[in-house]
Amino acid sequence: MSDAPIAIFDSGVGGLTVAAAIAKRLPNERLVYLGDTARLPYGTKSADTVTRYAVQATRALMRFEPKMVVIACNTASAVALPVLTAAYAPLPVVGVVEPGARAAVDASRGGAIAVIATEGTVKGGAYVRAIHALKPTATVVQRACPLFVSLAEEGWTEGQVADLTAERYLTDLFAAEDAPDTLVLGCTHFPVLRGPITKAAGGTVRLVDSAATTAKEVDRILETSGTKRTASPAPPKFLATDAPERFARVGSRFFGAEIAPDQVELTDIAP
Amino acid sequence: MSDAPIAIFDSGVGGLTVAAAIAKRLPNERLVYLGDTARLPYGTKSADTVTRYAVQATRALMRFEPKMVVIACNTASAVALPVLTAAYAPLPVVGVVEPGARAAVDASRGGAIAVIATEGTVKGGAYVRAIHALKPTATVVQRACPLFVSLAEEGWTEGQVADLTAERYLTDLFAAEDAPDTLVLGCTHFPVLRGPITKAAGGTVRLVDSAATTAKEVDRILETSGTKRTASPAPPKFLATDAPERFARVGSRFFGAEIAPDQVELTDIAP
Repeated sequence: MSDAPIAIFDSGVGGLTVAAAIAKRLPNERLVYLGDTARLPYGTKSADTVTRYAVQATRALMRFEPKMVVIACNTASAVALPVLTAAYAPLPVVGVVEPGARAAVDASRGGAIAVIATEGTVKGGAYVRAIHALKPTATVVQRACPLFVSLAEEGWTEGQVADLTAERYLTDLFAAEDAPDTLVLGCTHFPVLRGPITKAAGGTVRLVDSAATTAKEVDRILETSGTKRTASPAPPKFLATDAPERFARVGSRFFGAEIAPDQVELTDIAP
Repeated sequence: MSDAPIAIFDSGVGGLTVAAAIAKRLPNERLVYLGDTARLPYGTKSADTVTRYAVQATRALMRFEPKMVVIACNTASAVALPVLTAAYAPLPVVGVVEPGARAAVDASRGGAIAVIATEGTVKGGAYVRAIHALKPTATVVQRACPLFVSLAEEGWTEGQVADLTAERYLTDLFAAEDAPDTLVLGCTHFPVLRGPITKAAGGTVRLVDSAATTAKEVDRILETSGTKRTASPAPPKFLATDAPERFARVGSRFFGAEIAPDQVELTDIAP
């Protein structure tokens, strides 16, 4: 048993979908969530820059003496996980790409899988490698869908603009005869656009995201190491590197529960 | 006469529309342009954070010993101009908000003016103050249009998604009887969306942006101080804090001329 918190970080508010899944599965755990809102988004930035930011975010979370770090951002997971794992061993560092890949392989009947993500995640190719590591015969196509991030942040998660954007990104991917049967939502912003994405991809495609499978992986690690917390639930702690009131407002949509502005602490993590 | 360059900075590539207008009007001047691509966008961030970033960007440009600094970003102009002007006096520091406000007041027949911009610019209210300083009887309405930034970066500057986004943001603003007769494009990303914006605002609305009037203001200051450059034209110098190849690719669209990746130097400006 361990009373230490689980530290979660993301470029902004998208990772709150992952935090919500962890909170749901492990309601007794203490969660500390850091959103690097002063420098978001990570998805359009280079691997070097994202890695530097991820290292700074993780270092800032060390003051809470966590028992585990969860990188709830696909882009940061895709490019910075090896560095963070090496830097903080033996502390477990969990990314969202491997759990997302596992969910996709489990869901796919024919092994044809599409991944939609940010430019940075697509460029790094981490999902393709993770899926092939689990199932070498899988065929994987990727597409960067940067506008989904802005639509999700703006709250335009349904209606014509969202539908047409999804069509423009996805229709041709799913029009072929050997179209993918599974679609990975490889950015934490995308689950809130499930409606338009499903319409554009066609009703038979299975949508998977990393939130639930990441929570399952966190559960497994705590179980294995015997470090689950058994005390009564504690409210999550939120930190943001900029604009706490915006974090609370936009973040509530992703967390699926109201976050009050005074629950969010402004913090500086730049070196 | 002065051979020193004009330093221009922006959060990313949008300010290249301003750089292009300056280059067009003053073809003999040397331009050094810095895009803070590692931390863009500024438009969703707090005034404190944007001011800190703007100060760091300006400090980084001082190594070129410029004769003037142009803040080609509306958000940074709206929140950081007083600080930068004070910090670098007597070096002239020119923002884009005052020139944009002047263009609007000159264009408006009835004095009813709409401003579309980022969240940060709208929140700061700098356009409203600048327009009222020039014309106290003007009525000014503002609207934040964050998705226009992403559409411009993605290159979706025409077509259904751009049209519907513009309609959703603008139609009601221009439906009233006393609708604005002039619309300020208060973000350097917006001029590339002139088509959809015009359609949504209605054909009789005058669109103004800061690029040409800022170039005019730069010209006026150089003229007054006798510091124009008369030597033969020199190619502009570009600096980016992240991903030079993306800067070149996306930036070419805003600069209106091809920028080669090897014309862009990667630079670090964080403290």
